[in-house]
Amino acid sequence: MSNPTAAMLVIGDEILSGRTRDINANVLALALTEHGIDLEEVRFVPDVEARIIDGLNQLRMQFDHVFTSGGIGPTHDDITADCIARAFGVGIDVREDARAILATNYANTDMDLNAARLRMARIPDGATLIDNPISKAPGFTLGNVHVMAGVPKIFAVMLDGVLTTLKGGQPLLSVTVRVERPEGEVAVPLRVFADANPDLSVGSYPFNVDGVLGCNLVIRHQDAGVLARAEAALRTAMGLD
Amino acid sequence: MSNPTAAMLVIGDEILSGRTRDINANVLALALTEHGIDLEEVRFVPDVEARIIDGLNQLRMQFDHVFTSGGIGPTHDDITADCIARAFGVGIDVREDARAILATNYANTDMDLNAARLRMARIPDGATLIDNPISKAPGFTLGNVHVMAGVPKIFAVMLDGVLTTLKGGQPLLSVTVRVERPEGEVAVPLRVFADANPDLSVGSYPFNVDGVLGCNLVIRHQDAGVLARAEAALRTAMGLD
Repeated sequence: MSNPTAAMLVIGDEILSGRTRDINANVLALALTEHGIDLEEVRFVPDVEARIIDGLNQLRMQFDHVFTSGGIGPTHDDITADCIARAFGVGIDVREDARAILATNYANTDMDLNAARLRMARIPDGATLIDNPISKAPGFTLGNVHVMAGVPKIFAVMLDGVLTTLKGGQPLLSVTVRVERPEGEVAVPLRVFADANPDLSVGSYPFNVDGVLGCNLVIRHQDAGVLARAEAALRTAMGLD
Repeated sequence: MSNPTAAMLVIGDEILSGRTRDINANVLALALTEHGIDLEEVRFVPDVEARIIDGLNQLRMQFDHVFTSGGIGPTHDDITADCIARAFGVGIDVREDARAILATNYANTDMDLNAARLRMARIPDGATLIDNPISKAPGFTLGNVHVMAGVPKIFAVMLDGVLTTLKGGQPLLSVTVRVERPEGEVAVPLRVFADANPDLSVGSYPFNVDGVLGCNLVIRHQDAGVLARAEAALRTAMGLD
């Protein structure tokens, strides 16, 4: 029984120009791993309608869930909601419940819910709102696509909300075995170990710290018992015990 | 005359599980922007042959250059070079010049160029080597694909080398105008400005610092004169001058 799969679409010119460094992909990756959903692909695309729609349609057909970040603010370059509607072939307009939520954000300020801000209440037909306790402007889920803000704090809190609604599988557990020998010297026994344990994910990540060449060997499996036995076998194979 | 385009393929299970946070994409984005090459897409894919080959073939057909990171070490999970060879339909084997370079890395150590390490001298037929002054194991360029290490220090130095061989276009210049008014209040004049300057990239990035709500408006163009005139017009439109 395999876990649900997921992909992410990171939307924004500022990411591709390098002005902004995306950090949401890593937040999503860690949260999904813990929730038992396998993140299989991440794509960064610019604020260009055709690119967003093509990317979204490819990913939503291929994976159980797609998470997007970016492009849901009030300005002209925030085109994500309209692209999602177009990708699904559904209508989009200001929705009363979203407008009411937005209005609460401005009730006790000198700001008003003007036409630009109302853009943030444009929700594709049939979508479910995602709560935004920070700045109120909601995200939404349409089909298997979860549309969230790019601002990291808001992305993270929206994700927490969405994950409570998604059925996860078995979290992928991992164990790291630190070996203070260069990768090139453990590669052969490591391959033998990996070949003998085909249901295990086995990775090697080299390090060079204070002149010590070594590698962290990471093994992953959904079952804690399997993982513990594999760890013991790996330590033996590496001559650590 | 538009700039050359590029995409990036980030290869590795550790990125998609969240264990490692990719930082190479941002390094590449900044370097390409400066070099006058437009980064149009980034994809993260796992250490799975079919996924690497499919992603690579899609990107290399669509863009002028593809940069990859990850999967070129000595262990069993380092499958990038073989995937590249397969994607291009060419052979791959240990190459004498690459072997000679690797050998220099072990000449004055107690390490030897064993079979596992020789994996790093496997180069697809027809490729040109990319220099690795840090740990010697080379990257390579095949056609429009530049294959580099995942370790950030090595990725960065390989990239410096590759960029000296690539013809760039006009660097995309940018100017940021800081406006201490919420996005929702500048959205209308900003859209008017963007519509009046269709050859300009215009983005708005909100901030909330010490209770001050505002946005950084970023305009981008290849021509410094155009950009300076646009900045003046934008400042006027925002009531800043």
